[in-house]
Amino acid sequence: MNFASDNAGGVHPRIMAALAAANAGHVPAYGTDRITAAAQDRLREAFDAPEAAVHFVPTGTAANALALSLMAPGWGKVFCHQDAHIQTSETGAPEFFTGGAKLVLVPGTGGKITPEALIEALEANGRDSVHAGRNVALSLTNATEWGTVYDPDEVAALAGIARDHGLAVHMDGARFSNALASLDVAPADLTWRVGVDVLSLGATKNGCMAVEAVVIFDPALSEELEFRRKRGGALVSKHRYLAAQMLAWLEGDLWLQMASHANAMAHELALGLARLPGVRIDQRVATNQIFATMPRALYQRGLAAGISCHLWPHTQSADGDADEPVSIRLVCGWDTGLDDVTAALAALA
Amino acid sequence: MNFASDNAGGVHPRIMAALAAANAGHVPAYGTDRITAAAQDRLREAFDAPEAAVHFVPTGTAANALALSLMAPGWGKVFCHQDAHIQTSETGAPEFFTGGAKLVLVPGTGGKITPEALIEALEANGRDSVHAGRNVALSLTNATEWGTVYDPDEVAALAGIARDHGLAVHMDGARFSNALASLDVAPADLTWRVGVDVLSLGATKNGCMAVEAVVIFDPALSEELEFRRKRGGALVSKHRYLAAQMLAWLEGDLWLQMASHANAMAHELALGLARLPGVRIDQRVATNQIFATMPRALYQRGLAAGISCHLWPHTQSADGDADEPVSIRLVCGWDTGLDDVTAALAALA
Amino acid sequence: MNFASDNAGGVHPRIMAALAAANAGHVPAYGTDRITAAAQDRLREAFDAPEAAVHFVPTGTAANALALSLMAPGWGKVFCHQDAHIQTSETGAPEFFTGGAKLVLVPGTGGKITPEALIEALEANGRDSVHAGRNVALSLTNATEWGTVYDPDEVAALAGIARDHGLAVHMDGARFSNALASLDVAPADLTWRVGVDVLSLGATKNGCMAVEAVVIFDPALSEELEFRRKRGGALVSKHRYLAAQMLAWLEGDLWLQMASHANAMAHELALGLARLPGVRIDQRVATNQIFATMPRALYQRGLAAGISCHLWPHTQSADGDADEPVSIRLVCGWDTGLDDVTAALAALA
Amino acid sequence: MNFASDNAGGVHPRIMAALAAANAGHVPAYGTDRITAAAQDRLREAFDAPEAAVHFVPTGTAANALALSLMAPGWGKVFCHQDAHIQTSETGAPEFFTGGAKLVLVPGTGGKITPEALIEALEANGRDSVHAGRNVALSLTNATEWGTVYDPDEVAALAGIARDHGLAVHMDGARFSNALASLDVAPADLTWRVGVDVLSLGATKNGCMAVEAVVIFDPALSEELEFRRKRGGALVSKHRYLAAQMLAWLEGDLWLQMASHANAMAHELALGLARLPGVRIDQRVATNQIFATMPRALYQRGLAAGISCHLWPHTQSADGDADEPVSIRLVCGWDTGLDDVTAALAALA
Repeated sequence: MNFASDNAGGVHPRIMAALAAANAGHVPAYGTDRITAAAQDRLREAFDAPEAAVHFVPTGTAANALALSLMAPGWGKVFCHQDAHIQTSETGAPEFFTGGAKLVLVPGTGGKITPEALIEALEANGRDSVHAGRNVALSLTNATEWGTVYDPDEVAALAGIARDHGLAVHMDGARFSNALASLDVAPADLTWRVGVDVLSLGATKNGCMAVEAVVIFDPALSEELEFRRKRGGALVSKHRYLAAQMLAWLEGDLWLQMASHANAMAHELALGLARLPGVRIDQRVATNQIFATMPRALYQRGLAAGISCHLWPHTQSADGDADEPVSIRLVCGWDTGLDDVTAALAALA
Repeated sequence: MNFASDNAGGVHPRIMAALAAANAGHVPAYGTDRITAAAQDRLREAFDAPEAAVHFVPTGTAANALALSLMAPGWGKVFCHQDAHIQTSETGAPEFFTGGAKLVLVPGTGGKITPEALIEALEANGRDSVHAGRNVALSLTNATEWGTVYDPDEVAALAGIARDHGLAVHMDGARFSNALASLDVAPADLTWRVGVDVLSLGATKNGCMAVEAVVIFDPALSEELEFRRKRGGALVSKHRYLAAQMLAWLEGDLWLQMASHANAMAHELALGLARLPGVRIDQRVATNQIFATMPRALYQRGLAAGISCHLWPHTQSADGDADEPVSIRLVCGWDTGLDDVTAALAALA
Repeated sequence: MNFASDNAGGVHPRIMAALAAANAGHVPAYGTDRITAAAQDRLREAFDAPEAAVHFVPTGTAANALALSLMAPGWGKVFCHQDAHIQTSETGAPEFFTGGAKLVLVPGTGGKITPEALIEALEANGRDSVHAGRNVALSLTNATEWGTVYDPDEVAALAGIARDHGLAVHMDGARFSNALASLDVAPADLTWRVGVDVLSLGATKNGCMAVEAVVIFDPALSEELEFRRKRGGALVSKHRYLAAQMLAWLEGDLWLQMASHANAMAHELALGLARLPGVRIDQRVATNQIFATMPRALYQRGLAAGISCHLWPHTQSADGDADEPVSIRLVCGWDTGLDDVTAALAALA
Repeated sequence: MNFASDNAGGVHPRIMAALAAANAGHVPAYGTDRITAAAQDRLREAFDAPEAAVHFVPTGTAANALALSLMAPGWGKVFCHQDAHIQTSETGAPEFFTGGAKLVLVPGTGGKITPEALIEALEANGRDSVHAGRNVALSLTNATEWGTVYDPDEVAALAGIARDHGLAVHMDGARFSNALASLDVAPADLTWRVGVDVLSLGATKNGCMAVEAVVIFDPALSEELEFRRKRGGALVSKHRYLAAQMLAWLEGDLWLQMASHANAMAHELALGLARLPGVRIDQRVATNQIFATMPRALYQRGLAAGISCHLWPHTQSADGDADEPVSIRLVCGWDTGLDDVTAALAALA
């Protein structure tokens, strides 16, 4: 009963099979092979974006930091939610890859930035000067760090404000497929059609081994990304193995199927949790993450029964007053079984 | 009637004279000359810190960014007030010189961080991990950006919390002499004796032409500063002219006299302003800056009469409803005359 | 008949099997899992270095740049061979990760630095000052970019000079296993016992999919490496899959067996080539790379027959005078068959 | 008898007078004042370049590093002479400000790059790829580090090669006025008319206190320079004092007069030295620097008589065999008197 992280999950059998199939003979290195070309084409097709540049990297932090470095010079300001992964969990990688850009933190419930909050933040940082730096980008996470989603209209509204203020738009899509599955919209409708310039598309958390794509809807920036990727240590030599994962992930909409399953499991688990006395679901469960508050005793009973999950935020203590409420995060993945969910609910009931 | 900035002021005649006196013959470059040694000694003496390392740079931004780079690696977090100059007015210089460190913004009235706010910010950023980065430094501005001051006890309390959490303590002293003059305490009592590790000591705003000192109370970091200063483009070749300014500035406590005068003028001006109908003094006037709110019409009358000052924040508009209140900043300097103050008050009365 | 690059080769079946075996259930992410611990232990054991810190990254460029960043600040100078991979093929990654360190290029035949050349370079850069920067590290590649090797005595001699001049010693071991197999010495005897401080240990080129280890013999630097790896975007989330490769690679000395095989194939191929009229073997073939010069017509015949290899340097042209000599590189891998070698020689004969 | 460095010299009285004159009243800070505008205009006029952007900075290292950062991304290669100041004496500042660009060192006698050597270096670094980086700039020093000069035709030839290979052209003009005076050509004829894109124009060594200009002949890059200057800590607040120096320096061709005088003194000194037994003048003395070789005994006699100069290179020892030759550098400045020259020659005779 592991609900600790989608990074704790495994690799889908079809993706393992694709890796095995790719393991034949010699092929050119560094992304000049046919599997890479096929995966890039397939991704462009999925996004209805024949001109997009697509580059693969091994980590989500590299994808985000490289994407932002296309938009933000060292004197730039990137607006993002105060709980954005680029702020809380990437140890200064965006600052490192951009040469010192500043993240401007925008508050908002459920991990979401509202148009009002964005405008307020822009106004508070309105002094675009050599002293204050330049406002250059908006970074949205979709699905958000709190499991919620921006729908196409919401993205369009925020991207419109960004555009009006001269900002480029980045989307951190570490769980983009979960957002897509939740909203049941086309990839294009959640990205370039509503103003997203560069997407970090995460596949690792959703059934791959280690591959993320930087999808650049304006291909003029593609070459710069390639130089930045190499000098950032993120150009994988035996590139076919990145590409093979991505190709199998997209094939037959496996990515969306896995995401839908993970979302459904989270939905099921949340429904059950909500029925338990003393448990509160803190965020609308739109994707594969559940944020809930419960008495510490209940949390501890879950632990004892073998439920693995994180206190969220991490600064809480597992030990202490049994009645005191603690907040936790539970994450479902493509490989979360309904039996896991049932067993977990049974253990807590 | 110029109250726009202490950077708009001139150089004190005694400092000009010192520059002229230094302009004799050939002397070694890059800080190996006798005037530099004398200025360093004199500064150590003023701070009762015989072991301190003292290095001169031409700008306050260089002083701050270099000082922080001794404390913060690229994965470090520096806690500072949300209105700190290093955050609002240095265009990413701290991020650049540290290689990507993150500034964590702490709110607080009057430009001051309280112990409670610091503890709260530390707790919210308590996850010291490879994902979240490391908490490494506290940067305090004294006098603050809002003209207030931290007294020795306040610095000691904050530095104590910093120390308990493993943070080094930086003080941005762009207007340090104004704080000293306001508090009437010894330099040591406001710095190393109360836990400050590195001070950026500003002299430019207070009567010099262009010189700031980085005062490192732990001399072990001195050599690193020297390398960082040079590769940061901040090692002035004809160093005697930096040092001569500093020496004359310290001589006979000229620095404190100039600061006292500037503070007194601000006090006088604030007293007069407070008596005007519709004018509110927004911060306690402890040093040489006044932050006030008044009807736009009054502000405009002042402008028309030749009073030079800035709307603060800059995002306000000079034009608009005459009755609407606007907020302004007025700064006095060593060269603000009592006649300027009187004339300004007369023009507004 | 692919001799283009060991990066063009595949993954050894036992490593593929290990990946499949690792793909079971949920395990903690980011290197806190048991497979990672086991692989680290196994590597420490292989190097007879129970205190060493071991960290896995997905690319050789990340391994090298991160390793150097432990030794070289932005004002540091790293001495390396003029043909070192860190100079010729990593697009400024060392400069990026170190914050601007300078590579000092040392000439030498066969890709090797001699003690004399190192001393000469140190003397030419002897001005260790804030103007000239600081001499901080020596980086040796073993096996070298020209397929030759440093034996333990040679490493010891160079590392001794380094030590005497205050330099730390890095070894770029992208093909370290080929060097080990060629020399038939223990890993410790080619690294920490002869003065190497940090090793970039490459596994990808020699039968893995994508994993390299940074082996830090002084564990005090381990924590810094972890922060640098994360903010450099090189911390792979589903870490077990990196570790599983490494574990299988080391298991039963698979790494050495594969390297020996690759070396043997290169030896065989070189012997055959040397017998062909007009062909000159340009470097002693100690490992798995052959550098040869031959008439362009012969090179073209090989191409036509399906032999894949690179002109070396790349700046040569494939087209032109048939009699003119061209220089090429041929690389054998763990998956180069004796039949490939025989067929290639037959095609050229 | 100080011939150690032009940085050891003082400030010309007319420039001191200009500083005193500028020290009146309050003026806007950060380069928005009238003196700055006037100095920028005057410089544009001197260079017959009405569109050029002109920015002042306090050090030559900042000028060079900022200028290069407009041309070179972190994956760029900058071609320069192996003895260029940016390579030997700026401690990694170019690498820091560019985010990791690599300097490619071109050999050449007398500190000069020949067209042949440049072409050779470009060919050796011809692999413009994500692995090898991109060739982006040529940096020429004029006058060179060895006191020689490039004439307009030589600059044009090198700049033409640069242009053909896609490189921008930077000129390090720390002693540009000495080159102008030596060649007796117009500033434009040695810069933009022969292909120079950005000039670092040094004034400090030639009679100023601390001011250098970055002259950008393509004004489109001006805004970026302003952001880079501020976040590089090189935007001096009381800007009028930088500008006043520059204005007085240009006024009535004072810069050229001072440079001519320094050149003439060096010429005179070199003539006298050449007549001494055992003395060899190593480089053609075109500007204000002399590089000479003489028996150590003679050098020591000079020292004893009060002649101040540097062993060049610094790695030589002042002590040792009296007959052994040592190489020295002697530098004349605007304030070198003919009596100094005469006295020095008399002391050595």
